[in-house]
Amino acid sequence: MNTRLRSLLLGVALVLSGSWVRAQVPSGPQLPGPTAQSLKGVVLKRKAPINREILRVRLPRPQEARLKNGLEVLLLEDHRIPTFSMQMVILSGGLADPPDHRGLAQFTAALLREGTKRRTSREIAEQLEALGASLTAASGLSSLTSVVSVSGLVESMDEVLDLFADIIRNPTFPPEEVERYKTRTLAQLQLQRTLPQLLAQERFNRALYGEHPAGWTIPPVDSIRRLTSDALARFHAAHYRPNNAFLAVVGDVTLRELLPKLERFFGDWEPAEVPPVTIPSVTPPSVRKVYLIHRPGSVQTVLQLGVLGITRTDPDYFAVLVADRIFGGGPAARLFLNLREDKGYTYGAYSTFTSSKFPGVWGAGAAVRTEVTEGAMREFLYELRRLREEPVSAEELENAKRALVGSFALSLERPEELLQNIITQKIYNLPADYWDTYPQKVFAVTAEDVQRVARKYFDLERMQIVAVGDARRIREVLAQYGPLEVLDAEGRPLSALN
Amino acid sequence: MNTRLRSLLLGVALVLSGSWVRAQVPSGPQLPGPTAQSLKGVVLKRKAPINREILRVRLPRPQEARLKNGLEVLLLEDHRIPTFSMQMVILSGGLADPPDHRGLAQFTAALLREGTKRRTSREIAEQLEALGASLTAASGLSSLTSVVSVSGLVESMDEVLDLFADIIRNPTFPPEEVERYKTRTLAQLQLQRTLPQLLAQERFNRALYGEHPAGWTIPPVDSIRRLTSDALARFHAAHYRPNNAFLAVVGDVTLRELLPKLERFFGDWEPAEVPPVTIPSVTPPSVRKVYLIHRPGSVQTVLQLGVLGITRTDPDYFAVLVADRIFGGGPAARLFLNLREDKGYTYGAYSTFTSSKFPGVWGAGAAVRTEVTEGAMREFLYELRRLREEPVSAEELENAKRALVGSFALSLERPEELLQNIITQKIYNLPADYWDTYPQKVFAVTAEDVQRVARKYFDLERMQIVAVGDARRIREVLAQYGPLEVLDAEGRPLSALN
Repeated sequence: MNTRLRSLLLGVALVLSGSWVRAQVPSGPQLPGPTAQSLKGVVLKRKAPINREILRVRLPRPQEARLKNGLEVLLLEDHRIPTFSMQMVILSGGLADPPDHRGLAQFTAALLREGTKRRTSREIAEQLEALGASLTAASGLSSLTSVVSVSGLVESMDEVLDLFADIIRNPTFPPEEVERYKTRTLAQLQLQRTLPQLLAQERFNRALYGEHPAGWTIPPVDSIRRLTSDALARFHAAHYRPNNAFLAVVGDVTLRELLPKLERFFGDWEPAEVPPVTIPSVTPPSVRKVYLIHRPGSVQTVLQLGVLGITRTDPDYFAVLVADRIFGGGPAARLFLNLREDKGYTYGAYSTFTSSKFPGVWGAGAAVRTEVTEGAMREFLYELRRLREEPVSAEELENAKRALVGSFALSLERPEELLQNIITQKIYNLPADYWDTYPQKVFAVTAEDVQRVARKYFDLERMQIVAVGDARRIREVLAQYGPLEVLDAEGRPLSALN
Repeated sequence: MNTRLRSLLLGVALVLSGSWVRAQVPSGPQLPGPTAQSLKGVVLKRKAPINREILRVRLPRPQEARLKNGLEVLLLEDHRIPTFSMQMVILSGGLADPPDHRGLAQFTAALLREGTKRRTSREIAEQLEALGASLTAASGLSSLTSVVSVSGLVESMDEVLDLFADIIRNPTFPPEEVERYKTRTLAQLQLQRTLPQLLAQERFNRALYGEHPAGWTIPPVDSIRRLTSDALARFHAAHYRPNNAFLAVVGDVTLRELLPKLERFFGDWEPAEVPPVTIPSVTPPSVRKVYLIHRPGSVQTVLQLGVLGITRTDPDYFAVLVADRIFGGGPAARLFLNLREDKGYTYGAYSTFTSSKFPGVWGAGAAVRTEVTEGAMREFLYELRRLREEPVSAEELENAKRALVGSFALSLERPEELLQNIITQKIYNLPADYWDTYPQKVFAVTAEDVQRVARKYFDLERMQIVAVGDARRIREVLAQYGPLEVLDAEGRPLSALN
């Protein structure tokens, strides 16, 4: 190629604004072709009294297609590296567990790779190794979905798809593998029970959610003991169906190349009627309560407190997001500055905010030295009251909003985050421009919104408080905050200490 | 723009093979301009008796420049998203600690952001939040470097650089912040001492490295207690110098835009003579020894065993990398298949392989149920002997090599991994095509190489073995493997149990 021509081509490439532009080029006349798009385009928008710059983005839209059996496919092309990642999202998770067999979705996902009609567990592990691919499958006790993910090199996409489809479609749950899974999971749970953070989380979720699936943090031991190959096969046959799933792909492949491969490996995957999953309603706790899990001789107290929050699609979502950031969402938030920087009570104090199709949690916690348990509780309550009773300052508000938008922008560097955004959008049926307008939605939140949602949701009279530590040293402190129940690590009341 | 012209431009963009192509376009006539490069280009290379495909890559070379004060700058352009990340790599880490003040490099890095001549700790946290930027600073007890990293939006690059330079150049280590750091770090160490994995690691490193800096896993309590603002300021003044550092940048910026900014914020950072850091030599243990840390009532035994390995630039590096992958480097490796899949002793059993400018560790470990401690030890030894005494099968070898190359290729998706590779290359003075030829170097390893390095380095007569668990239940088992010393969690001999 002569030099002038090369310069010209390179010059043209410089004018275009990112690989995502090319990702959006229609790959053939028969496919719906979105127009060229750019991730960039920052504009300055001056608005008295604060000059602020709002990041304007237009994220790549996935290409959409459907296999003949109804399986929906979403593809985001990315041609920088000859690799791909894909996630098969099954629209049944822990929320589809039978009430008398909590954890079944999680166990099913975990055991998919332990043997299929054509491959033993060992062969699956060896073939993944040979393909340089990695595969995970997971669900949760209260999750909406079960997800099987794989990534690999495009040069071996056929072999990886063969394995991926086999695991999703033909698992056999061999009884000897089920027994091994039970043994190692029971041993693992026994170890987890020695971790105070896990014990605090477990009691906290139970206090907020009761018998709702989200009330479970780890699967009940009895559920694991009763696990059989048949139960797994039944859950799999009922829920792992193309009409109850979608496949999201990012990588160095066009839709025209991808679809024939998918038809080959998933085309004869048979649809079937899937049992409807109803999301159980949540009954919020009616009064404040304090749970203390006794760990004799503990040098620390793990504190966790909070309330039921909102769903992912609640109109207050962005107001709570900003309020949470100001309250305890990072190292510039009030909890961190107060409990760690100012008082030195802890290595870190944070709030958490989760959401799903059912109300999530809005809470806060820290592991503090036993002797400062009283001070830590006082400061948590002080910060909660302040958030409810005073509007946040203009500076705090602006900083929190910029921080949220900044980390959103930085997350867009990673293809897997873009894929995750697309999956979230699909699961919650969010509008097509949801992520494009994310910065604008964050910046629209006002100080009044923050105070309003703090008052509305963080109801101190219904807050649940959990402490894990030495009850003999901290019981009196905690009893000041509400009716107190002292428990052992297994959750049994310790009557001698109550 | 008319449709034909747009199609033409898009067509041209499709011909080019990735955003890295554009990243390599010279940004001005005065700068050295590497030619267009591609991350792609997989070729099939058939070689009897196994057909294998070797990934051929040519990774983007960073653009290099130097500020007037000598600070070296490496830039990898990436114009997909309007963000940037940079790492200031200071070429002094824990290896530069005074022998009587272990941890000083680590403490210095951790306290950089706790106050400067122009900003308080709180102002730093708030300004980072306001800029939507994130900043970390860290070193280790035996690390070669101290690294300050920041990432943010290009729209606020000037403000971020102002803060970044202030933290690197003007920290004041305010005495009250030093006191807070001491309080929370001492509390944190007390908690870490309750974790059996940490106790095992600590004893294991001490057994292999003795008084070498790598013999320390967490800083000695005494070092923290004696910490002063003056000691930090002295370490900082001696080592944080432009002639003892380089700056690696990836992001949506050209060298022409970047250099004037860097001159503005770092141009008057003064060079000075930096005390030379000598890397202390390591004396390998001369005999096998077993350490047992007694945790009464523990339901598990944490096992860790291993030997001193090799340096990062050792010609045997790739042979050990492949041998380690086969031995215990993942879920298709021998340790995992044997101890977990076959025997069900543990949730996971893995080997580890580290390297630096001094010899690293080649080891293995697992947390197993107390009652199977004997079986687990037997299988670890069985797998070690097998690796030393029999050549690995052609299939295992091929699979391990493909897995290593596959995960290498997948890592190239992430800009921060590319930056990390460039930093590693710089620190160890690796050849310019080191990462391009990584797949070829992996594939060149033979079964004879694997056996040779296993025999050469994994010397069972000098292996160190550490167990953390209930000594009353596992002491007899462990005593079979060598001279046994029983210790408490603080490392003191437990004479009653010895």
